[in-house]
Amino acid sequence: MSVPATLHFEDLALGQTFRSRPLTLTAEAIKRFAAEFDPQPFHLDEAAAAASFFAGLCASGWHTAALTMRLLTECVPFAGGMIGAGMDELRWPSPARPGDVLTCAAEITELRPSRSRPEIGLVKLLTTTTSQAGAPVLILRSNNIVPRRTGAAR
Amino acid sequence: MSVPATLHFEDLALGQTFRSRPLTLTAEAIKRFAAEFDPQPFHLDEAAAAASFFAGLCASGWHTAALTMRLLTECVPFAGGMIGAGMDELRWPSPARPGDVLTCAAEITELRPSRSRPEIGLVKLLTTTTSQAGAPVLILRSNNIVPRRTGAAR
Repeated sequence: MSVPATLHFEDLALGQTFRSRPLTLTAEAIKRFAAEFDPQPFHLDEAAAAASFFAGLCASGWHTAALTMRLLTECVPFAGGMIGAGMDELRWPSPARPGDVLTCAAEITELRPSRSRPEIGLVKLLTTTTSQAGAPVLILRSNNIVPRRTGAAR
Repeated sequence: MSVPATLHFEDLALGQTFRSRPLTLTAEAIKRFAAEFDPQPFHLDEAAAAASFFAGLCASGWHTAALTMRLLTECVPFAGGMIGAGMDELRWPSPARPGDVLTCAAEITELRPSRSRPEIGLVKLLTTTTSQAGAPVLILRSNNIVPRRTGAAR
């Protein structure tokens, strides 16, 4: 599903939006990620999760973020790859549940040439990861580094 | 390394800081996470990474974030667990490299009872994950939900 990473800063436009393939979240994947990185009962065990704040098994927010990154690497064709220079906001408005089919849309909300480094531009993306029901499971405002076509070779 | 999750909102104080155990990052772990979630050359292959923006293999920022979460679940003893209500900032000032020994410190920077939900309080944490050389590899400003001792049982 990957696209060639060919877009330089000069090729980008405000409002341009990249859309991912769908990805199905499974209970097995939720538990496997959680066992390694976020071993809390509401990410590991259905019964414990049912009695928790989340009222049912749900993915670690960091799992949802990692899956979002996976989908973005497949659909955002920046030359040089997806290089994050920090996130301004990361929220999980709805829990991601087993069986959810997730898709991402990443919209360019700001484009700014770097003042200090003429070979790069700074690109803000607003990424929304949504379930098949339309529930937003992740909202991310990220700052990305994209090489300029006219810049120095790297 | 886990501590009992016993601290309610009323038990917390501004400036209180939780410190993690050290965790060693390996090239194998960097590549394994990247293969699943962030398959870009600078996280997968030493030679390609050497020629990249990062001038050497480094962990996906989402890997560093997931490892930070792992360490926080072991050292932040909030009753009810670590429940994130969104992140205000997430940055990776320095790349995390193979062999780095990471530790986290999470400081309480704000405490606020929820106005709409008397059973919870909102706790802001400033988490810094640092390498053995003192380089900050991750800075996270998070909003966390912590139950009040006086609140309704959940």
